[in-house]
Amino acid sequence: MIKVSVLYPHKDGGKFDMDYYLRKHMPLVRERLGASLKSMAVEQGIGGGAPNSPPPFAAMGHLFFDDIGAFKSGMESHGAEFMADIPNFTNIEPTIQVSEVKL
Amino acid sequence: MIKVSVLYPHKDGGKFDMDYYLRKHMPLVRERLGASLKSMAVEQGIGGGAPNSPPPFAAMGHLFFDDIGAFKSGMESHGAEFMADIPNFTNIEPTIQVSEVKL
Repeated sequence: MIKVSVLYPHKDGGKFDMDYYLRKHMPLVRERLGASLKSMAVEQGIGGGAPNSPPPFAAMGHLFFDDIGAFKSGMESHGAEFMADIPNFTNIEPTIQVSEVKL
Repeated sequence: MIKVSVLYPHKDGGKFDMDYYLRKHMPLVRERLGASLKSMAVEQGIGGGAPNSPPPFAAMGHLFFDDIGAFKSGMESHGAEFMADIPNFTNIEPTIQVSEVKL
């Protein structure tokens, strides 16, 4: 199983509209990717390791695929549309992590 | 639900023993935290957003709790033991992200 994490770093002046992300963006991703998307997850950062420290990431979205080919195929078909929607909910440039699920 | 992510940044010279992590470290965490730990997840980084780019994180471990109090209580009791085990599988200083699960 492959997990693609879209990580939005916390920064001063960073804005992230979690309501839009949950109600519009992620449903768009789910609809476009269809059955190749096995599941998704979303988290909102609330803190870091030290007491009262900010979270490294303001928000994180995760997409699960059976294999890397399914992810690449989905991005080739729909990636431009997903990217074009990002300014509708954030001014933060995301960091992308592609991982193999081990547990 | 609270998700605590322990993120090991990819770096030159960084070492991460995934076998030890899966066989020894995470089972230790699971045993010590007991029922307060709702679930755990582990991923190994395989790439970044650009073709052939390294993953931002070499590895990621995630712990899920009902609330922040359960996490803090577990760390107060067992955090020192967990930290002391880190040099057994990596020379990378982890980044901690505490998040609220939204989806």
